[in-house]
Amino acid sequence: MKSHRKELWFETTTRRAYLNITSQVEAELRASGIREGLVLVNAMHITASVFINDDESGLHGDFERWLEKLAPEKPYAQYAHNGYEDNADAHLKRQVMGREVVVAITEGRLDLGSWEQIFYGEFDGKRRKRVLVKIIGE
Amino acid sequence: MKSHRKELWFETTTRRAYLNITSQVEAELRASGIREGLVLVNAMHITASVFINDDESGLHGDFERWLEKLAPEKPYAQYAHNGYEDNADAHLKRQVMGREVVVAITEGRLDLGSWEQIFYGEFDGKRRKRVLVKIIGE
Amino acid sequence: MKSHRKELWFETTTRRAYLNITSQVEAELRASGIREGLVLVNAMHITASVFINDDESGLHGDFERWLEKLAPEKPYAQYAHNGYEDNADAHLKRQVMGREVVVAITEGRLDLGSWEQIFYGEFDGKRRKRVLVKIIGE
Repeated sequence: MKSHRKELWFETTTRRAYLNITSQVEAELRASGIREGLVLVNAMHITASVFINDDESGLHGDFERWLEKLAPEKPYAQYAHNGYEDNADAHLKRQVMGREVVVAITEGRLDLGSWEQIFYGEFDGKRRKRVLVKIIGE
Repeated sequence: MKSHRKELWFETTTRRAYLNITSQVEAELRASGIREGLVLVNAMHITASVFINDDESGLHGDFERWLEKLAPEKPYAQYAHNGYEDNADAHLKRQVMGREVVVAITEGRLDLGSWEQIFYGEFDGKRRKRVLVKIIGE
Repeated sequence: MKSHRKELWFETTTRRAYLNITSQVEAELRASGIREGLVLVNAMHITASVFINDDESGLHGDFERWLEKLAPEKPYAQYAHNGYEDNADAHLKRQVMGREVVVAITEGRLDLGSWEQIFYGEFDGKRRKRVLVKIIGE
């Protein structure tokens, strides 16, 4: 069994953002030389998400409005977590969107459906944060 | 390390549906000959879900009503994604229910709790769509 | 490829609770002797969750209030599942929080970000329930 590990770093200019990281995960897969296995891609921060959905800006706007309805950022005082921080909403939004994805590797490629793209979902940005790519297989 | 890959195809007669696919995943596990490892089961479409919950029709009706409350299908115009399409709600519902499950394989069997069953959750059906089963182990 | 399996048992005194199980997962990793691979940690019950977030009591109170808003426990009769049971809300809450996490293993350690902690999320407790830890790697 072979394994490969890489941290990807991101710093968004806005509090919330969706970044397509599919090509960066593909680059790690090529670097690993692994042909059959699994890749785990997870946020290493608890106010961010890695998820798979559509690379369509209208949908990303829908995500923004929908998540703000389910877990609004403001007023900050509505959350007990916001004593010293203001990011409780980001912890909740990340639960809806998920921490991680696991993707199959087949014949040296990410085994994704036609429209599946891997995103980093940032809910408390404007600082450097990490995603872990871990690949195991042969 | 051995690996096994299979696509399962589904075409529901309704826009939304929940199909128990546990026995199909078990059949792939038997076909793989793998005794210890992990199986990844994921929707290959971004308007569908694979999740684990109870095979109880009352609960499935509860899912339907609950998801419609969290991310209503209509009016279509409430979503920016719905310019050429009408399925933005399906992209949102799938985030709540999840894209994939990873299940342990122990002594050649799916290592599930007593009531755990694997479901394909369709949120934009009436067309042929795929689920990926990828098994790795020994 | 090596594998290791352990069931962790929990019985909470309240219907809902969040238990930090990170050290128990680490103990299984040490017992496994595995240095590189993946660990799957999943609830074996469909009214409970395993998730990763912050070990901060204010946030856990926020989870409690937020999940009660998204999927209220009462009135029980609002859910079709609650004919013989009263736990439909627990099945819904668990979908928001997720069934499982997959964590990378690197150099014999859980490859977690600084604040990532693994939790058992109980939504229908006061009885003995199980979490599965399955580790594969080398």
